[in-house]
Amino acid sequence: MPRPGLGAEGVPSPGVTERAVCVIGTGLIGGSLVRAADKAGRTVWGTSASIDTADAARADGFDVTTDTDAALRRAVGTDALVVLAVPLPALPDVLRRVDAVAPTCRMTDAVSVKVATADAVDRFAPRARYVGGHPMAGTADSGWAAGSAALFADAAWVVAADDGLDLDVWADVAELAWACGARVVPAAADEHDLAVARISHLPHLLAAVLAAVGAAGDDELALSLAASSFADGTRVAGTRPELVLAMCEGNRDALLAAVDDALGRLGAMRGALASTGGLAATVRAGYAGRERWASSRGPDDVRARLTGLSPLAELREIGRRGHALVGWAV
Amino acid sequence: MPRPGLGAEGVPSPGVTERAVCVIGTGLIGGSLVRAADKAGRTVWGTSASIDTADAARADGFDVTTDTDAALRRAVGTDALVVLAVPLPALPDVLRRVDAVAPTCRMTDAVSVKVATADAVDRFAPRARYVGGHPMAGTADSGWAAGSAALFADAAWVVAADDGLDLDVWADVAELAWACGARVVPAAADEHDLAVARISHLPHLLAAVLAAVGAAGDDELALSLAASSFADGTRVAGTRPELVLAMCEGNRDALLAAVDDALGRLGAMRGALASTGGLAATVRAGYAGRERWASSRGPDDVRARLTGLSPLAELREIGRRGHALVGWAV
Repeated sequence: MPRPGLGAEGVPSPGVTERAVCVIGTGLIGGSLVRAADKAGRTVWGTSASIDTADAARADGFDVTTDTDAALRRAVGTDALVVLAVPLPALPDVLRRVDAVAPTCRMTDAVSVKVATADAVDRFAPRARYVGGHPMAGTADSGWAAGSAALFADAAWVVAADDGLDLDVWADVAELAWACGARVVPAAADEHDLAVARISHLPHLLAAVLAAVGAAGDDELALSLAASSFADGTRVAGTRPELVLAMCEGNRDALLAAVDDALGRLGAMRGALASTGGLAATVRAGYAGRERWASSRGPDDVRARLTGLSPLAELREIGRRGHALVGWAV
Repeated sequence: MPRPGLGAEGVPSPGVTERAVCVIGTGLIGGSLVRAADKAGRTVWGTSASIDTADAARADGFDVTTDTDAALRRAVGTDALVVLAVPLPALPDVLRRVDAVAPTCRMTDAVSVKVATADAVDRFAPRARYVGGHPMAGTADSGWAAGSAALFADAAWVVAADDGLDLDVWADVAELAWACGARVVPAAADEHDLAVARISHLPHLLAAVLAAVGAAGDDELALSLAASSFADGTRVAGTRPELVLAMCEGNRDALLAAVDDALGRLGAMRGALASTGGLAATVRAGYAGRERWASSRGPDDVRARLTGLSPLAELREIGRRGHALVGWAV
């Protein structure tokens, strides 16, 4: 039976609701994925490096083990989709096990940077049928207990759409995202990294700088007067530092570009303030940017097929237009 | 009868609930003040440069006119407290009328910068018995219709506490703030300006820069992926540019110091990211700053008297410790 998204020329594949899922790492994201896939009717199992986490997950009724090799062997036996849901620094060890036990498995990930992850896959598990992913969901909490089957509802789930990727695995990842309630945003790995540097990683760093400046006084007056503008502007500075560092430091090149853009704009503003005293250019550009974002929310949901001469190039254009895939075109 | 806050050596004065209030400018802040003072039982009247605003206020049952001179003459006749609630650029014209019609009136203001306002008073209405104020409340909306008697409830209301100010008018301003439900934070004018530069004006400028960087891409991908960290970090960039400009440009010197602090921290971060790739110093300092703010909220409310050798110096120390006055000590 041809797969809905692939059309007659697509690779034959099991029905969309049947692909089993093997989740490596069951913290906030992986743990939520185990729950969401289970709720969607998938066969799903997971692994954790922590005995306590595996015990807690089993106590909640889920199939989670500490034996990564066994979980990967089971993925080979059922042609399951393997999802890497560990922090970037933990990838090399996990990928070595993949290469040893399930070298050609269907594989995706939930790591927040895509170029560094693809590089690690190329190096440590080069035979895997890998298509990168990034479900853009999270909370201030972490760990298995913080997870929820609803975490991905209406979230954007970026799926890497660089030329040469395996279309059948691409369909697997998209269908998993839809099963979890998310909308699929196709993007080239490097374009993803530049985008999240600007709208996710830079906000964390500016919040940190603002919080440090606000607290820098030698008395309590400033902090005692801080109200909503400071509260909003520094909210993500309250995120656990390890999480912010893992996210931002793994996206160094793209983040440098975003930081330099911000520094350039701040420097120009400083110059204008010192010379003419005028801030209109800065304030109006910011107002226009915020308005553009506010008015662009809720872009059209679209449907497409993985067919044609350049299906992934067409998908990338969908993402660049700010749209999201919600299913296959009929 | 001696005034409660001033003690036996204080200037005799009417009872605290009786001082009438004349509000010049009935936009969001002035309009809210008219409503709040009325609700507190004060005799209150206001002025607007706009016939439409005055009509709307009268239709709502309040005593608002477009005749500023008449309002000021009435203030002279009743020894009322005049409150300047116009934007900084409108101050010179208003102060010229004060100097012509009510030159020695009791006077305060609700402008968000205190040094520039005090300078304008010195220049255009130097005989007024002026004590600066800054009720730190606001919404994203503006104008009479957006006002509310509850706007100042639990808000910080900074009252300038530089040496040499008129203690009787100081008590007037504090009692008006309390009547409106606010807590009084005493601060020197220049210390106020430095503090708000760091915790209010800089947040607006960083939000503007972040919004501009986020919208700078030549496609819609980044904005379509922007979620809570971008939404929070850019919220105040959606404020009407004229309001942000009036606020920030009037606080140029203090704002330059805050911007330079932020630029220094961002530059150091950029250097660390480019050289070692490490962001720990930035992220941890931001986390510590946010935690310090979060844990410092709800400082002790204190009571004091305007007595002793240096009553205003003692009040300034209360503000520096992050505390607020909620009434006179008995």
